Amino acid sequence: MGSRVVIIGGGFAGLAAARDLAKAKAADGQPFQITLVDRRNHHLFQPLLYQVATAALSPAEIAVPIRSLFSEEPNVRVVLDEITEFQKLERGGIAVGRAAEYPFDFLILAAGAGHSYFGHPEWEPFAPGLKTLENATNIRRRVLLAFERAEMETDPEKQKALLTFAVVGGGPTGVEIAGALAEISRYTLESDFRRIDPSRTRVILIEAGSRLLASFHESLSKQAARDLEKMGVQIWTSTRVSKVSEDGVQLGQEFVQAKTVIWAAGVKPSPLGDKVVQAFGGRLDPQGRVFVDRQLRLAGGSPDVYVLGDLAHFDAKDGKPLPGLAPVAMQQGRFVATLLEKQSRLQPSEGSPEFEYFDKGQMATIGRKRAVVEAGRIRFAGYFAWITWLFIHIYYLIGFKNRFFVFYQWAWAYLTFRRGARLIQES
Amino acid sequence: MGSRVVIIGGGFAGLAAARDLAKAKAADGQPFQITLVDRRNHHLFQPLLYQVATAALSPAEIAVPIRSLFSEEPNVRVVLDEITEFQKLERGGIAVGRAAEYPFDFLILAAGAGHSYFGHPEWEPFAPGLKTLENATNIRRRVLLAFERAEMETDPEKQKALLTFAVVGGGPTGVEIAGALAEISRYTLESDFRRIDPSRTRVILIEAGSRLLASFHESLSKQAARDLEKMGVQIWTSTRVSKVSEDGVQLGQEFVQAKTVIWAAGVKPSPLGDKVVQAFGGRLDPQGRVFVDRQLRLAGGSPDVYVLGDLAHFDAKDGKPLPGLAPVAMQQGRFVATLLEKQSRLQPSEGSPEFEYFDKGQMATIGRKRAVVEAGRIRFAGYFAWITWLFIHIYYLIGFKNRFFVFYQWAWAYLTFRRGARLIQES
Repeated sequence: MGSRVVIIGGGFAGLAAARDLAKAKAADGQPFQITLVDRRNHHLFQPLLYQVATAALSPAEIAVPIRSLFSEEPNVRVVLDEITEFQKLERGGIAVGRAAEYPFDFLILAAGAGHSYFGHPEWEPFAPGLKTLENATNIRRRVLLAFERAEMETDPEKQKALLTFAVVGGGPTGVEIAGALAEISRYTLESDFRRIDPSRTRVILIEAGSRLLASFHESLSKQAARDLEKMGVQIWTSTRVSKVSEDGVQLGQEFVQAKTVIWAAGVKPSPLGDKVVQAFGGRLDPQGRVFVDRQLRLAGGSPDVYVLGDLAHFDAKDGKPLPGLAPVAMQQGRFVATLLEKQSRLQPSEGSPEFEYFDKGQMATIGRKRAVVEAGRIRFAGYFAWITWLFIHIYYLIGFKNRFFVFYQWAWAYLTFRRGARLIQES
Repeated sequence: MGSRVVIIGGGFAGLAAARDLAKAKAADGQPFQITLVDRRNHHLFQPLLYQVATAALSPAEIAVPIRSLFSEEPNVRVVLDEITEFQKLERGGIAVGRAAEYPFDFLILAAGAGHSYFGHPEWEPFAPGLKTLENATNIRRRVLLAFERAEMETDPEKQKALLTFAVVGGGPTGVEIAGALAEISRYTLESDFRRIDPSRTRVILIEAGSRLLASFHESLSKQAARDLEKMGVQIWTSTRVSKVSEDGVQLGQEFVQAKTVIWAAGVKPSPLGDKVVQAFGGRLDPQGRVFVDRQLRLAGGSPDVYVLGDLAHFDAKDGKPLPGLAPVAMQQGRFVATLLEKQSRLQPSEGSPEFEYFDKGQMATIGRKRAVVEAGRIRFAGYFAWITWLFIHIYYLIGFKNRFFVFYQWAWAYLTFRRGARLIQES
């Protein structure tokens, strides 16, 4: 029997690790016995989640059943379960789930991150975030219902509050949502309403820092802000949210009446980071991410445990931790798969390979035809950046069929300004 | 100002009426002022709803936002509201909704039907029906979760209960669901599970009458039963459900352990039928449908109120009430639109036109390549019937884009046996 590997999380990191490991051979020449555990039955292409929230795509277009990705790999077992704690054994350990226990020789923890409301979990019901399909369809419902209610509303004050959308957080997700909301109201819904003028919609993008897209070069931040403002988005930088309620957001002294508030601000690493550290040693950074060494193992903990993706704190060469991006997660997944395969063949004298992130760049789209792209010293914005964004996202979407569908939906939306998935579904 | 027409319900009947009336002229030469009220923001192509429940199609592929269908018709106002009662005025009346009141000269009530559990509403949580998108995604979640849980289950008895699917009702919907479930387990999920053998799934189709598809010719009922049995469906006719619980269905003396029960049996007309009769006169049949005259007006009630579709009891020439089918609803919608336009121009001496149903036939599909079709004396079954079913459904699907997508999804599923929308979404 090959080594037993338990992978927790079917996101970019977990999938990449499972795919490569499935084809690898363990020390004894046997294939690894892989168990991939996730709370959900689907892998989600999170970079396009905002398009579900803004009714451009359907859930099935950006999600794939994890199980179906491993149909051809008999040594991969996919399990729908939620891990609640860990037990250390002399070698390896056990991941304990709600439905069963999963013993392992090696653990790959890639459980990702949820939302952080900066110590105010009570804001969540009024300001849903965007991490899961349910989040996205929930936001879609709220946005579409706000327009429907505004159409029925006779009090102009209340109508204004219904037509005000506040997006908290000026990173890529916040920028993408704000741009899409501005477009929906300007173009998509323009002729659909009789009593309200959807173009009177206010979209307010609120950022605590001094500029949007802080991880990008300053010139691109400015370009993005200019583009958004042209689309009618109001950008409030250096503005901190001090309260969120059913009626809107408190920003210092000012209260903005907004019936729809969308949270794109903080992330909070999975609590499994803490659990793994308790069982296997190591420590967490102040945000709750797990410190990992150059091999992505628990730093100062058991060498059989790897932590990847948004949950890992790995210091890059510049001393800053790597950002929570899909390419980081994918590269880490592939690295660990290779490492596990090589490891057993190394002589003790040989040094282990070290993980290095190859930064291919970052990008964010702004509405229907514009984007900003940054790759090392190359920076560009505008239509060509948008085309680049489009093809890269199509390319990385998993599964040919989804790719085709998403491309077709985009072509349709581009030509007609129509959004296909404007459904209000009750939960 | 043209006459004010309030249409309640955005199903096949209400939409057909609204579309034709939007282009018609009222007595004074003005366009009608039309208000279309629905509880949902979307029109649903119900004949394909079972395909969402069985993960072949996504919700957005069989639903269109009603609002978007009337973008170009300034005299149609679409309202998301739930009507709760009616008030009669000297001429016309008022439909009272939760959000507003809608005064009318003419009312077109096309509120459709929900599920009937034959006086046992307590069965509903254990045996969801199939009328709304939420029903469909709920059933999809249950079916997919049943397989996931079976994969984790070690007790063979419990595993068997998880892999038993009971479908109650042998009409077209029941037949279509049972066929799709049999196929999912035989082909789609075959290679996806490691521990269970999805082909050991039991699909039981339970019908109280003596044969399936009672509205079809007996030869087609037999053909459908044979086809389903070949696919592994167990057909239990002349079998009455006496209880449904979390663990299964009671059939007389026998209890069948089944963790998934799907209700495709009875329909219960909307309670608005009762409300309209209370306010405007007329009466209900024992099932709760509203008796209408040859012009589809309230029989024995106010002449300003029309009732269409599943909610109407209209006796055909053979003395039997017309069935609750999409073609009936559409023809009735168009009839009333024409009638309202002509009405004002008729001399009192002229007789009003009478509604007549032109029966183009009926059909039901059985799995991936077979169907039964009946049109008058023409009856056929098998592959060609399935192709016929496929093209007619594509043809009637509203919106070019949806048509294209559905066709593509079907082609994909046909060639690969894969179902695109296998997502378990929490509600």
